[in-house]
Order: sequence, then C-alpha cells, then structure tokens
Amino acid sequence: MARPRIKDVALRAGVSEKTVSNVINDYEHVSERTRKAVREAIAELGYRVNLAGRHLRRGRTGIIALVLPELDFPYFADLANGIITEAERNGLTVLLHQTRADRQHELSALHGFDHDFADGVILSPLALTTEDLRDRRRTLPAVLLGEAIEPGWADHVAIDNVRAARDATEHLISIGRRRILVVGGSDAPPPGTAEARTLGYRQALDAAGLPYDPAAVMPVAQFRMPHGAAAVARALDAGPRPDAVLCLNDQMALGAIRTLHERGLRVPRDVAVVGFDDVEGGRFSVPTLTTVSPDKKAVARVAVELLLLRIAEAAGGSGNADLPPEERVVPHRLAIRESTAGPAAAAPAG
Amino acid sequence: MARPRIKDVALRAGVSEKTVSNVINDYEHVSERTRKAVREAIAELGYRVNLAGRHLRRGRTGIIALVLPELDFPYFADLANGIITEAERNGLTVLLHQTRADRQHELSALHGFDHDFADGVILSPLALTTEDLRDRRRTLPAVLLGEAIEPGWADHVAIDNVRAARDATEHLISIGRRRILVVGGSDAPPPGTAEARTLGYRQALDAAGLPYDPAAVMPVAQFRMPHGAAAVARALDAGPRPDAVLCLNDQMALGAIRTLHERGLRVPRDVAVVGFDDVEGGRFSVPTLTTVSPDKKAVARVAVELLLLRIAEAAGGSGNADLPPEERVVPHRLAIRESTAGPAAAAPAG
Repeated sequence: MARPRIKDVALRAGVSEKTVSNVINDYEHVSERTRKAVREAIAELGYRVNLAGRHLRRGRTGIIALVLPELDFPYFADLANGIITEAERNGLTVLLHQTRADRQHELSALHGFDHDFADGVILSPLALTTEDLRDRRRTLPAVLLGEAIEPGWADHVAIDNVRAARDATEHLISIGRRRILVVGGSDAPPPGTAEARTLGYRQALDAAGLPYDPAAVMPVAQFRMPHGAAAVARALDAGPRPDAVLCLNDQMALGAIRTLHERGLRVPRDVAVVGFDDVEGGRFSVPTLTTVSPDKKAVARVAVELLLLRIAEAAGGSGNADLPPEERVVPHRLAIRESTAGPAAAAPAG
Repeated sequence: MARPRIKDVALRAGVSEKTVSNVINDYEHVSERTRKAVREAIAELGYRVNLAGRHLRRGRTGIIALVLPELDFPYFADLANGIITEAERNGLTVLLHQTRADRQHELSALHGFDHDFADGVILSPLALTTEDLRDRRRTLPAVLLGEAIEPGWADHVAIDNVRAARDATEHLISIGRRRILVVGGSDAPPPGTAEARTLGYRQALDAAGLPYDPAAVMPVAQFRMPHGAAAVARALDAGPRPDAVLCLNDQMALGAIRTLHERGLRVPRDVAVVGFDDVEGGRFSVPTLTTVSPDKKAVARVAVELLLLRIAEAAGGSGNADLPPEERVVPHRLAIRESTAGPAAAAPAG
C-alpha cells in the first residue's frame, strides 16, 4: 500500500483535509470528538506526521532556514527569536540567512541554497516580484512573511498593515493632531509594506474629513534611525511644522524623537510620535514610544505550524501541494505610551 | 606528487609559514619582495588557496556558519552584519545559528550540526568551558570570538576587555565621578567578559586611589534593557546615590538612563552613564550615550580572514593544524557623548 496521505486521513475520519491540518497543528477550535477521530485515523493508517513536537527527522535533516532581509533590525531579531523558540520546541534547528533584500539571495533561499540541508524555509521577501514567483514551482516547503507578493503561491503570514496604520493615524487624530507626517511612506499602490501602511493613513484622514497632503509622505532610503532623524529634520526645515509623526517603524521613530529633541520641540506636547513594531528600544526611550504592536509570537507560531505541516506533507511523499496555500492574518494592537500621551500645544502655524 | 601544503610554499619561498599566511591574508606588513616570492611559490606549486576573494568552492560548499549567543542583541547583530559583508566579499554564504548560550548548542555548532554543509564556523561561545575544549579535536575549521576560554585551541579574536573597562572608568574618574556602579559586573576571576571588564574597573579605581566597594558591582541575569533599568532602580533604593554608572553593554545603559529619568535625576549632571558596544540606539538616545566602541569591522575582517585561511588549509588536504592558532586583539576606543559630557552636580550625599 502506498504511503498514506492527508486526504486518506480525512476520508477515514470523515472530515475535510483542512480539519486534519487543524488537528495536526493543534488548533483550539476543533471539537474533542473530531480531534479524536482524526488522531485515530492517523494512527490506523500510520500517517507520518509529528503531533506534539517530537522530531520530524525521518529522512530529513531537522534543519529549517529562516531568511530575513536585515538581521540588525530589532523587529526581525524579535521575529527570529520567536521562530527559533517555536522551531526548537518542535525539535528543529534554525539557520538564518540575511538577504539584504537582494532578489538573487531571496530566490536562492527559496531553493535551499542549492544544498540539501534544509527541510523547509521561512522567508520574508522584500525584492521578489509577482513575476519571480508566478511561474516558479516551489522546490522546498516554504512559508512567506510580510506583505503578500503573490497570494496563493505559498503559505503566507502577516498583520493587516492597512488596518494597523489606520488605527495609528486614528489615534493621532483622536488626540487632536491634524498635520501628520508619514516617515517611510510611499504613494505607490500596494503590495509593499510602506504602500499598505500609507494607504491606511490615507483612509484614516479620509474618514476624518482631513485633507491629504502628498508632501507629508516622506520616503526614506532605509528604515533606520538616521533616516528617520533626517526625514524629520527635512520636514522641519521645509515647514509648516507637523504636530505628529507616524513613522513606519520604531527605529525611524526613535531617530525622529532625537531630532525633535535637538530642535527644542517637546514630544508629545509639540509633536506626537508613533512607530511600528514594538521593539524594546521604544519601551525604554525618553519618552517611551507609542507603537503598532504586531503579535510577533503569533507570527512565529503560525509560520512554524504551517511549515511543519508542509514538511510533513513532503515527507509523506505526496509533495507539498496537498492543501492549498493558506493566508493567515495575525492580530496587532496599538501600544499607547508617552510619545502620544497628553494634550497638544496650540495648533501649529500654517 | 602530493597536494602542496603551506609548509611547501614556505620552503620554496624561503620564508616562515606565518609569513605565507600573512601574504595569503593580504596583510600590510609584508614587504613587496616577500609578497612576490610567496606568490611565485604558490603559483609554481599550484598551492590551492584563494588570494583575492575568489570562490573557495573546490569541493567545499561555500557556506560558513556564524554561531552567536543571542541574535536580538544589537551588538551581535552588528557583528553578524560585518561578518556577512566580509564573507560575501569572499564568495561565501553565511548561515547563522543562535545558541542562547547553551553549551550543547555551542558544542553541536563546533561540529557543523552533524551535517556537512558548512566549510567552517565562527563561534562566540558563552557556555563552553575550558574542559569542553581541552580534550576535543576541532573537526571543522573554527574561529572563536569574545573572551578566550581556552587559549591556543583555535584562532581567537577579541578586544582587550580589561583595558576597555579601565579606559571607561578612568574617563568617569577624570570628570570627577567617585561613586561608580558597575551594572552587569562580576567579582569572579576571568575568563568571562563581565569578569574581565570588572577587573579593568577595579584597576582604574586602584590607580586613582579610590576605594573598591563590592556593593557597587551589580550582577544581572541578562544584559538587557529591563535588567539595566532594574539594577539602577535597586541601587537608588538602597543608596547612597551613585554619581556614575558603568554598564557593561549599551542595552543596559539605555535601561539605566530610563530609570534615572523616571527618578528625576539628570544625565550626566546628577549621574553620568557609560555603556559598551557602540550600538545605534546609543547614538540617537536622549541623551546620547558614551560607550566603549570596539572596532567591529576589524573583528569581522580578522575573523573571516582567519577562517578563510583555515578552510584553505583544510581544502589543501593538510588538516587545519598547519599553523598554530592565533590570538588577535582588535582595537577599541571610547566614544564620548552627552551622557558623560558636562560637569557633575554637587557630590552626592553619603
């Protein structure tokens, strides 16, 4: 008899393949009865999947690759930490690779660097395009993070970036701010993280009946502290003075706070500041930083769960295309701290 | 004829093996004449080594492993960035692994994770002991970073941590500070980074004729912002108030600044703060942070140079023990910024 596949388990248990996957991944929203039926079917058929963190080493290496644009961004470091924790709980070793958002590196990673040491890859692409993926078969189980470049190509995990930026902007409007810079923003249409977040900012302005000023959207070369600091300096030199700055990551927001301090402006009294990512630096800065806090642990947990399922599928000899790719949106919240707490000064001139 | 070894090159060129290695690594302090002789010998013998960043892929994978305790420490992220840059200039792909200072992970990494995908490993160990290494043969070309646990076991690159902490403490004394906390310090004897730095602090006190107070040395569970913040809070609660805080990394120093701000103390007027590592966060904090700045680019360059040499040696069929392990000390400097600039307030009570 051929090695049993996930659909054989589903048939035997009388449930959908999706439900089998949910049981394998140990989701909460499966009834105990269904869970029991699926586990019995798995046991009876000898379906090879690892339910509770035991090693998945049958003919595999037990190594997964985590491929990120920049390892020295605290957000990616936090994410790596979470993914490593989840993977190790499941008996996997994680090796990381930095692409510097280079397309060739990203493509190479998707194919395991031409070496057969990785069972699968979790990749946060920045340079890959829809065209890069559309006609390319996956050769290795893969999960993509961040904004979707080609929905349906592989499992994909992200926050709702449009909604998150809209939440942050609504918060600034709710504390009376009207002239809100977007540092790191981009006017181009999505996909792309900067584009999705700028869209959310515009939606919040529209909903509040506030005008959209393209000059308030400030692209940057990199999402780093010096670039955030320099963008705010440029905006202050050009005038009129903003009363809030929405920075598309915390690093730029910390740079922005530094520039405002050097210019003698008080945060939040003169200028409120919001970041994205909820990195540790913003919890200890002076002032502490209001930020969009993605549920990074959920990103990590879901990414590893999905990858484990794909690896199990591949090990089952059925390829990794048994189940259609999943789109998973993980929650975010707005962490309100000193950089937006408190009343605005008199409305700025202009 | 057997594959030529580095000693054959040395014999032919009439120089020492060390000089051959210096030429291979492109050091500056080799005369042009010697350089020429060595290169001719290499060419005549067909010695297989890669001089100028061309690929080292003869039978190798072109992948090296970089193994660090914590990837979410900005210092290690900076270091990883530098090593990746150097390695890629030499045609190598870098895969990173996080050990969380776990001894088993560190040992496993030294042996290439039981897989033959890495040509060599650069490891910053925290848990390995002298005993772990003493009786163990290197199975893979390896370079160790950080404080030496077993000098002479493998090539080793570090700053002079005793001297660096002494420099930082002397600076605090020179601006009139007398009650200097050491956050993250340890009274135990070296080896160990905390131990070496605490020793340097004591040397500076001794040289200035200042008393050493064991209560001023504050161990922490981790070198992170919350731990620095909490240590300073404990010290302020216990009294007497310090007039300076030497934190053994920048993360703890940024946490310390936050606590001092919350307690209404001015930095540097009431309490001066110094960190270690020169991470970006301290260049944009309010106030900016005085710090020991190790030459991280030099650490990266030297580590990759040494590893390339060992890989070339191993590829030459001679094992990687042709040359004795090297101890390399890279430079550091004190970057003086706002957190120690300016006069002290009146001497604290006590």
